[in-house]
Amino acid sequence: MASTPGELTVRSGRVKHTRRLATRAFRAETGEFLAEGPQAVREALTVPDATVEVFATATGTAQHTDLVDAAEALDVPWHVVTDDVVESIADTVQPQGVVARCRIPAASLDSLLATDPTFLVVCADIRDPGNAGAVIRCADAAGAQGVVFVGDSVDPYNPKSVRATVGSVFHLPVVTERDVAATLARLQGLGLQVLAADGGGDVSLFADDLDLAQPTAWLMGNEAWGLPAATRSLADRVVSVPIYGRAESLNLATAAAVCLYASARARSTG
Amino acid sequence: MASTPGELTVRSGRVKHTRRLATRAFRAETGEFLAEGPQAVREALTVPDATVEVFATATGTAQHTDLVDAAEALDVPWHVVTDDVVESIADTVQPQGVVARCRIPAASLDSLLATDPTFLVVCADIRDPGNAGAVIRCADAAGAQGVVFVGDSVDPYNPKSVRATVGSVFHLPVVTERDVAATLARLQGLGLQVLAADGGGDVSLFADDLDLAQPTAWLMGNEAWGLPAATRSLADRVVSVPIYGRAESLNLATAAAVCLYASARARSTG
Repeated sequence: MASTPGELTVRSGRVKHTRRLATRAFRAETGEFLAEGPQAVREALTVPDATVEVFATATGTAQHTDLVDAAEALDVPWHVVTDDVVESIADTVQPQGVVARCRIPAASLDSLLATDPTFLVVCADIRDPGNAGAVIRCADAAGAQGVVFVGDSVDPYNPKSVRATVGSVFHLPVVTERDVAATLARLQGLGLQVLAADGGGDVSLFADDLDLAQPTAWLMGNEAWGLPAATRSLADRVVSVPIYGRAESLNLATAAAVCLYASARARSTG
Repeated sequence: MASTPGELTVRSGRVKHTRRLATRAFRAETGEFLAEGPQAVREALTVPDATVEVFATATGTAQHTDLVDAAEALDVPWHVVTDDVVESIADTVQPQGVVARCRIPAASLDSLLATDPTFLVVCADIRDPGNAGAVIRCADAAGAQGVVFVGDSVDPYNPKSVRATVGSVFHLPVVTERDVAATLARLQGLGLQVLAADGGGDVSLFADDLDLAQPTAWLMGNEAWGLPAATRSLADRVVSVPIYGRAESLNLATAAAVCLYASARARSTG
């Protein structure tokens, strides 16, 4: 099933195509994205129809025969290529010899809301792909049913974001919507309370009158400037993670982890 | 108080000295480290005797007159220098025009334990400075009284780590000890329960029989391979953050945030 080394070069059409998936415009045009490294490729190969093809070095192929088998079982082409082909495709420093061209799942806000979700995460204006990926990973771990990127956010299918999700981008719907206010209104219309996470919030995450067992959408803001007042005002509650020491704040991913796990805990015991 | 531009160049002795603080060996030799960016320098200037001198561009000086005033009040020299001097010193990409040469606080495990701490974090074999800094920031936010780096860990006074703490390295004792077993035994001898955070732990973080209001030292392992079995076996309990979705794990900083905040919550209500 694995093709022989040397068949594809950095100038081959399919290699050039795959390399272009590093750009947001080409991902939008093709509906495809890159999964880099064995862990991401392993997750891709657990999802039917997610993977178009795999490019791997001879070393990566020899080290990951489980992936070769998984690709074969799904009839996904596995191309054994030279190191420079993998390096030319991969956005990240260490793709560990394996990258896959994948299809962006067909999820939309409509399809996500049709599942009657009770635990969502909304990311507004998140700019750093590593942060976006870390929040998706936390959302998955905490049992959230989807992540919605709104406003002027990074593309969650950016290679650095995909890598930071460590496979979670394949586990739950991740959708992008432009309009923050319309998105929050739809969630509220479905009975979800929108909780804005904000250091200046008027209610503590651990306050008795905050009912985290209720259907909830957590709204997380930009890593540097948080949520603009106009966006905060759309939330049902503005919630702060209490600071017990002298730190000014938590970073985005750790604040998300604390908030989402507070919800997860309440949901599992409530 | 601010010196005039052009006095110091990249070849000046004090600039060369400061630049060498990017290396662990020179930090160990001098007991000094770098604080980069206005936020870190602001925190440094809140601690008596922490700051030796500040180097700032003309722009950085004009933008941060509060820092110029703070330095003056402490008799800390403020050198206005050219952009290339600041860039030659700074390890990080964007020092935002201000870097400080600081003294590493004289904290040790002895001095930390003499304060009868009831909430500590122990980091074993943490290699990435960004992770080390993020854990220090979480520890500060959650109200921990100190962080101990043991085993083969990154130097928490690495410039990237200092930057990731966003000032927290100035807020609580951060000490380094080589011997993991001896350190944990000392903590246990003082009545702290040692809780190892590990995905394969035998007790859930949210289990009823886990008493997080007790004096506790959280033991966090390496970002890639976690805690070796021999280290885990030294802990009183091996605790896992429950995974409600399909993620395999959380990353180090988010796992630390969830564990430390579970303790903080129990301590504040217990």
